[in-house]
Amino acid sequence: MAKSAETEHPVKAYGWAATASDTTGLLSPFKFSRRATSDKDVRLKVLYCGICHSDLHMIKNEWGFTNYPIIPGHEIVGEVTEIGSKVENFKVGDKVGVGVLVGSCRSCARCCDNLENHCTKQVQTYNVPNFDGTKTYGGYSESMVADEHFVVRWPDNLPLDSGAPLLCAGITTYSPLRHFGLDKPGTKVGVVGLGGLGHVAVKMAKAFGAHVTVISTSETKKQEALEKLGADSFLISRDPEQLQGAVSSLDGIIDTVSATHSVVPLLGLLKPDGKLVMVGAPETPLEVPVFNLLRGRKILGGSNIGGLKETQEMLDFAAKHNITADVEVIPVDYVNTAMDRLVKSDVRYRFVIDVGNTLRTE
Amino acid sequence: MAKSAETEHPVKAYGWAATASDTTGLLSPFKFSRRATSDKDVRLKVLYCGICHSDLHMIKNEWGFTNYPIIPGHEIVGEVTEIGSKVENFKVGDKVGVGVLVGSCRSCARCCDNLENHCTKQVQTYNVPNFDGTKTYGGYSESMVADEHFVVRWPDNLPLDSGAPLLCAGITTYSPLRHFGLDKPGTKVGVVGLGGLGHVAVKMAKAFGAHVTVISTSETKKQEALEKLGADSFLISRDPEQLQGAVSSLDGIIDTVSATHSVVPLLGLLKPDGKLVMVGAPETPLEVPVFNLLRGRKILGGSNIGGLKETQEMLDFAAKHNITADVEVIPVDYVNTAMDRLVKSDVRYRFVIDVGNTLRTE
Repeated sequence: MAKSAETEHPVKAYGWAATASDTTGLLSPFKFSRRATSDKDVRLKVLYCGICHSDLHMIKNEWGFTNYPIIPGHEIVGEVTEIGSKVENFKVGDKVGVGVLVGSCRSCARCCDNLENHCTKQVQTYNVPNFDGTKTYGGYSESMVADEHFVVRWPDNLPLDSGAPLLCAGITTYSPLRHFGLDKPGTKVGVVGLGGLGHVAVKMAKAFGAHVTVISTSETKKQEALEKLGADSFLISRDPEQLQGAVSSLDGIIDTVSATHSVVPLLGLLKPDGKLVMVGAPETPLEVPVFNLLRGRKILGGSNIGGLKETQEMLDFAAKHNITADVEVIPVDYVNTAMDRLVKSDVRYRFVIDVGNTLRTE
Repeated sequence: MAKSAETEHPVKAYGWAATASDTTGLLSPFKFSRRATSDKDVRLKVLYCGICHSDLHMIKNEWGFTNYPIIPGHEIVGEVTEIGSKVENFKVGDKVGVGVLVGSCRSCARCCDNLENHCTKQVQTYNVPNFDGTKTYGGYSESMVADEHFVVRWPDNLPLDSGAPLLCAGITTYSPLRHFGLDKPGTKVGVVGLGGLGHVAVKMAKAFGAHVTVISTSETKKQEALEKLGADSFLISRDPEQLQGAVSSLDGIIDTVSATHSVVPLLGLLKPDGKLVMVGAPETPLEVPVFNLLRGRKILGGSNIGGLKETQEMLDFAAKHNITADVEVIPVDYVNTAMDRLVKSDVRYRFVIDVGNTLRTE
């Protein structure tokens, strides 16, 4: 990249970025640029952007591949302001969403199967080189440009603010419930961890008609899980007696926890042919005793967001079933405080930045 | 068990057992007893019995739950000598098999689904209490008695000696190929380890029409894998270049290795949605980095033999496709030498004891 972020594209843009000068991840106002709207592009004014836990990892370079300066944000809801000449599915004024991906090869077997999320040439919404060699910047910014293939239509009755987190937390939990066959009425589904991902997983599973058990380290979340989120039962993951009482009771588990934890008790909760699906990503490898898989032909799987077609399907499903995230809407200049609170899990359950009303474009 | 093995049942029986007096696992002639043939029982004269690697683990108490004295053997082929009054499916003179199970509850959801191998009340063919409280003894013995539900019909054209190992090695590999959808023509299947299980896995997968890649630590097995067993390609698991060249190429892998090994390179060989299925059981837990599952929505599963209906189906499939194990037939008094050679993997690929012709009933 010969040019700076501020000049590489023709259109001036504004956002909040973490820069190499402060790897504690402090975000501050940042001038950069967006490309002009090309034939297949949709340009949008960003209205809301959710704060995903991976944004926090990335601004602090906790996964080791942050390329500063970085503008995070991949739960983006906005209004179309311009379309390219060959755009077919959107018009100016439409409400739309952009999630974790803004590009993929569009020709490999996975792309042809609507699984752009497994394309090896996928372009994530921030922190990576785009096909033209420039870097992608995320949704903590006043505008966004993306090929229409990576833009989803916002359902009319889905709130813009509390719906935003569905673009990552929603598809991340909806997709494995569908793919691993945990979307049938009466299915016994466990959800490990009641954070940004977990609370949406509970709502999605309930909407599918599942019997949902929340598994958490914290007794304090019991009332909330049962009364507010509608879970059917609750297990303290550190209570051997409770776990023993629920052995072989679940068809599947969505494990949303990124902290290191043992999966052995979780495998024990599964019925034969049960499925433990990781959607959180602990940094240390899981320790998996093979006998715990052999007995009962159990599987341990992983799932990572979803393709664009399924993301649209998920949004439509959420709209139909009145599913949104539980959010705390914040102004952009609160974002560093929000990150500090996120470290302490001090949010029920997702921060969403009111970008449209609070991000100043100097 | 108030009575001794020799007197607890009415019918005298003879076998070779390992006893508590020598936990090195030395086998020697042993007198015990078998129950009388009850209404639903089939009694058989044992003709051949395969030596499974788990027999070796068990006679040495390597898994810690051996209950001496122990008569191993769960790959049993014989001829029916007596049937109970209510036996429906067999008659005297029939050739039959008994595998890893001789009992289950017959009423739980798993049993009703023909998955007796996942019944929590299953009775294994040796070393465990049967429903009447007496202990089960395996096929290194001149006779066997089992409820007809746990007896399979031997196909006419399937050799008795080289077919015997199919009762464990055959179903252990056939079942996961079927269950995990690796049984379609053209499917790319990897087989890790070319021992008793692995060489049968190759034959089964080839019979399904799969493209089979053998993955082994040993270059010496290459020629055999390709020319004798009909595998399509071969990878040295310790050669990073070979593995790199095969990244994302397999739909599924059957991992037959019981020694501790890393599954990380194996997960790398899988395509998106690929399946790594453990049928061997390393004693130490697998270390599984979660990102390696998330990327490509891969799964790690386990499979453990199969149900009785599927075991019959597997035998019929083997007979149709001329699948047998590669065996070295031995007299029973060679069994301790065979065990020593098995420790060193010095057999291509399965020992089978000629029980019918060599076990003396004093």
